[in-house]
Amino acid sequence: MKKKVGIVLGSKSDLPVVEKAIGVLQSYDVPMEVRILSAHRCPNEAREFAVSARESGFSVLIAAAGMAAHLAGALAANTTLPVIGIPCKSAALDGMDALLSTVMMPSGIPVATVAIDGAKNAAILAVEIMALSDDELAAKLEAARAAETAAVLAADAEINAKYH
Amino acid sequence: MKKKVGIVLGSKSDLPVVEKAIGVLQSYDVPMEVRILSAHRCPNEAREFAVSARESGFSVLIAAAGMAAHLAGALAANTTLPVIGIPCKSAALDGMDALLSTVMMPSGIPVATVAIDGAKNAAILAVEIMALSDDELAAKLEAARAAETAAVLAADAEINAKYH
Amino acid sequence: MKKKVGIVLGSKSDLPVVEKAIGVLQSYDVPMEVRILSAHRCPNEAREFAVSARESGFSVLIAAAGMAAHLAGALAANTTLPVIGIPCKSAALDGMDALLSTVMMPSGIPVATVAIDGAKNAAILAVEIMALSDDELAAKLEAARAAETAAVLAADAEINAKYH
Amino acid sequence: MKKKVGIVLGSKSDLPVVEKAIGVLQSYDVPMEVRILSAHRCPNEAREFAVSARESGFSVLIAAAGMAAHLAGALAANTTLPVIGIPCKSAALDGMDALLSTVMMPSGIPVATVAIDGAKNAAILAVEIMALSDDELAAKLEAARAAETAAVLAADAEINAKYH
Amino acid sequence: MKKKVGIVLGSKSDLPVVEKAIGVLQSYDVPMEVRILSAHRCPNEAREFAVSARESGFSVLIAAAGMAAHLAGALAANTTLPVIGIPCKSAALDGMDALLSTVMMPSGIPVATVAIDGAKNAAILAVEIMALSDDELAAKLEAARAAETAAVLAADAEINAKYH
Amino acid sequence: MKKKVGIVLGSKSDLPVVEKAIGVLQSYDVPMEVRILSAHRCPNEAREFAVSARESGFSVLIAAAGMAAHLAGALAANTTLPVIGIPCKSAALDGMDALLSTVMMPSGIPVATVAIDGAKNAAILAVEIMALSDDELAAKLEAARAAETAAVLAADAEINAKYH
Amino acid sequence: MKKKVGIVLGSKSDLPVVEKAIGVLQSYDVPMEVRILSAHRCPNEAREFAVSARESGFSVLIAAAGMAAHLAGALAANTTLPVIGIPCKSAALDGMDALLSTVMMPSGIPVATVAIDGAKNAAILAVEIMALSDDELAAKLEAARAAETAAVLAADAEINAKYH
Amino acid sequence: MKKKVGIVLGSKSDLPVVEKAIGVLQSYDVPMEVRILSAHRCPNEAREFAVSARESGFSVLIAAAGMAAHLAGALAANTTLPVIGIPCKSAALDGMDALLSTVMMPSGIPVATVAIDGAKNAAILAVEIMALSDDELAAKLEAARAAETAAVLAADAEINAKYH
Repeated sequence: MKKKVGIVLGSKSDLPVVEKAIGVLQSYDVPMEVRILSAHRCPNEAREFAVSARESGFSVLIAAAGMAAHLAGALAANTTLPVIGIPCKSAALDGMDALLSTVMMPSGIPVATVAIDGAKNAAILAVEIMALSDDELAAKLEAARAAETAAVLAADAEINAKYH
Repeated sequence: MKKKVGIVLGSKSDLPVVEKAIGVLQSYDVPMEVRILSAHRCPNEAREFAVSARESGFSVLIAAAGMAAHLAGALAANTTLPVIGIPCKSAALDGMDALLSTVMMPSGIPVATVAIDGAKNAAILAVEIMALSDDELAAKLEAARAAETAAVLAADAEINAKYH
Repeated sequence: MKKKVGIVLGSKSDLPVVEKAIGVLQSYDVPMEVRILSAHRCPNEAREFAVSARESGFSVLIAAAGMAAHLAGALAANTTLPVIGIPCKSAALDGMDALLSTVMMPSGIPVATVAIDGAKNAAILAVEIMALSDDELAAKLEAARAAETAAVLAADAEINAKYH
Repeated sequence: MKKKVGIVLGSKSDLPVVEKAIGVLQSYDVPMEVRILSAHRCPNEAREFAVSARESGFSVLIAAAGMAAHLAGALAANTTLPVIGIPCKSAALDGMDALLSTVMMPSGIPVATVAIDGAKNAAILAVEIMALSDDELAAKLEAARAAETAAVLAADAEINAKYH
Repeated sequence: MKKKVGIVLGSKSDLPVVEKAIGVLQSYDVPMEVRILSAHRCPNEAREFAVSARESGFSVLIAAAGMAAHLAGALAANTTLPVIGIPCKSAALDGMDALLSTVMMPSGIPVATVAIDGAKNAAILAVEIMALSDDELAAKLEAARAAETAAVLAADAEINAKYH
Repeated sequence: MKKKVGIVLGSKSDLPVVEKAIGVLQSYDVPMEVRILSAHRCPNEAREFAVSARESGFSVLIAAAGMAAHLAGALAANTTLPVIGIPCKSAALDGMDALLSTVMMPSGIPVATVAIDGAKNAAILAVEIMALSDDELAAKLEAARAAETAAVLAADAEINAKYH
Repeated sequence: MKKKVGIVLGSKSDLPVVEKAIGVLQSYDVPMEVRILSAHRCPNEAREFAVSARESGFSVLIAAAGMAAHLAGALAANTTLPVIGIPCKSAALDGMDALLSTVMMPSGIPVATVAIDGAKNAAILAVEIMALSDDELAAKLEAARAAETAAVLAADAEINAKYH
Repeated sequence: MKKKVGIVLGSKSDLPVVEKAIGVLQSYDVPMEVRILSAHRCPNEAREFAVSARESGFSVLIAAAGMAAHLAGALAANTTLPVIGIPCKSAALDGMDALLSTVMMPSGIPVATVAIDGAKNAAILAVEIMALSDDELAAKLEAARAAETAAVLAADAEINAKYH
């Protein structure tokens, strides 16, 4: 059976950010499970999810949280699967609190942090990791990258024609 | 039996900072327990400590950690005792990472945060809390405050004489 | 007579933030007094309030202020009751000014600082402190925490069903 | 009788920074008084000093403090004399905490803030203010400025000769 | 003849901020002159204004500018009158750029910096300085301060009644 | 043949910022080419553009990008033409990420960085550079500067009349 | 043949930081290649390394760079292998420049960022990724994690005995 | 006669930083003049230097200053020659004050800003600008770049051999 990606939100309010990650995984036909598990409001369930994640068939976990964003670190503390952290921007401090709370992990427990609200990149990174043992995924990634390049070059041609 | 304060360090390397808190509690004859329990390296033990803290006879928990300092929040997520957080300065970012990771807690799970490396104040705050139901402690706090005032005024008299 | 919580606003404009704290205290039936006492515009009244707070029957003070937010520190300088500080976000600097002015207190005079605009957590922290000598409050806190956990798990079940 | 400048330190540890201000005032023969009065450890004395400062013969107050530097604001709250604030750099955050705590004063209570550890400029600013009604001081200020200009130009001539 | 305050804007776009300063000075019947003189777009005129400010009858200069806000410093470099700087918030960085550009002046050339967009306080500070040799102004300042205190206390009474 | 300026956008979404640069260059009749070439999405095309820029007749390159803004540095790594960087403000961090990613270049590979979203200044800087070997351009620059000065002085006269 | 990890340094001066990553990979017997390839000083070689990395047998790339740290992004732009970025602290800004330049990648090109100077975690993250298709590595990771937990608990027992 | 580069220091204390720029210009045999001209302590001389810079035979000006670093902007306000700014790190704030004071210039008056203490890059940028009309300089720049690339590749070969 194919391994799946676990997407964990610290709060329902993070869903609009995370939906971009869901969309990317769907476009790659990567199986996923989406959970709302707060490191602070249901720490047991978050812990149990992480502890059993490998044998539940997960390969990569993605955690999205704001403010003192402990979720990615809390998952990483309970699994040796790769954990990707999305720091979410909140009402104050423009996301800097979530960024530092996610990325500045102590030695031994890494969190692979992406940009503030960088949900799309979190999903692509998960696919890149899964593609290491799935050539079909690797080919799709290359194709998607080529399509992005083509889109930029088309925009380039258009503007180049306009201002040349 | 008298309630005790739990001081929890995220890492042995935080001990030099935390020793000031230990000294303050000793000077007030407040019973305490000092633990090293990392939110990331021994999450289960940290969780169990917090879950059972109230019935183990703790009244207040003090947590000291650096970088993506999740310890105070991880304890607070597992107890409704008051939790005091000491953000510790590390090699980079001058303590700002630990400060934001400790203080910017989401709604529902407060951490009473003191200054970066503010271990002495963490202990005084714990004593202030315990003094609410202990008039002797309250009197000691007032005396200590008066002594501090007197010390400043003595220094003031000295410098005032010198430059008047 | 039951001890009460004092909520002090630095300015009437902080009321929308502080109303969340008022609501929490009301939900716990904790007696309170709400005051507007500026550390800068009526320093005498603020000082007198703090000096007499313990014998006026207060147990915990909560202070909310923005910009160079001195209010919590000014109260703490005049009482040995626990003082909780809420840094309020203002027009510039996204609350960082109020956060640093509130949390970076010098040795001897702690302020228990919560998140920027974290009024709800300030009130919960006050309840946690009062619950140390009030088992009924402690039980209510546990119940509220359990209700929050349940709410997250319900949201989790819903989203898990949708994206599984 | 000539008006005097009041220099107030929040702590004896700020003296090395403040000595530069003392030296400047001495070089201008401006009478001064140097005090150690903490906004937090002896708030009453600090307040009384400010309340009576005008009739004690002070014209300008200079306040130096670090961390959550409330001293300048606390003096300004109790006098309508001009108050100059020197934010002092402490162990963490490189002085940013003291700067924001000093400069971001709410409407109605200004503090004339100089650079972090900018004690010399605080004293010059005090002299500039006193010189408004003292032509001799004004002339000395102009002379000092001219001397500084000359010193720069001498250094300029030297380096210009070397690398021309 | 009464001395006047010079208010200098770095750009016409700073007028909405500065109007609060104008209003304060008008309420104190302090004579003033309002100028738009950019340190960068008309450096000669800005310099000449500062060079001749003392003999033109100015006592205090107020400079408001945003971004790399050099205006206050440029005036201060050309006069020994006290110069007050208002850092103005711009499209990016929330005013931090203007604050640091205004307050971090090198030794010898002070700028009395107020809060970001703190135009009202800049004007009050100017009045405080002028009041040192004008007892009527000093009395007005005390009265204004008392009125502010009364306003806060009135708001306090109202809210205290509501939530007591 | 006259040398031209190359304006490179990291993404089509940067066009509204960059249009101010285009307008400036048009007003100086400086030939230009506008390109959309992402350092990350079409790195080959970006590299080839820079490698051949000198012999393609470019004199100066202007690069506008946001977030981890590598574009200016990526061009500078592949040419010894002067490269001007415009850090663009994005959804989070108020442009600080793009500023630091653009300006903090390692030794050997300079990028001439202008203000966040400072497209107009990027273009003027390019014209200043080209004017070193084009006296007509130099004269136009002087005229434009004089016109700006005149505009400020006109605004000054107007406000001076109003508030004098 | 076993896949290998590529460690790329932006400059020889980053070696002391990166040696911790090398040590971790050696302790896991993970094959690796260590390169010094600057995104700015040898962009072609860096690009070619990334372009051919997948078929050269690499599974994960780790990039360490300081200041405007473009290296991780430049590699990521030329491969769809997972790229891990280590932001290195330099002489100024305490590593914030490298952190933002590494983590704030635009949509489409993720970099898995670890803490400032977090080389050890970068290597562990690489091992976690490789362990997804290597059960032996996964077991070693679990064992290492258990050893870390045991080490913390031993330190805990020691300090608990001392202060109980 | 060959055009020359003007290097202006805000203070003699900036010389250690600036000597790297001097060394680069000497290695390219580019004529230069080195001056110490403070925007604040000798504003007239700084202004006159800039006003006459073009006809004095300068092509590019480099300005190095710390704290509220106005020097580059003050020169740029008085010339339409390209001005390069080097923000210098001082005792507090790690150079952020000088960076923002130098780079955040208002529309119309650009400063080409390099990294904090980035004197070497300032000189290379000046050479790049002068090389636009000097093919010999352009060739030297290419050779220097090639030498830097070769040095990195040599270091790469060495480390690659060691850890392969």
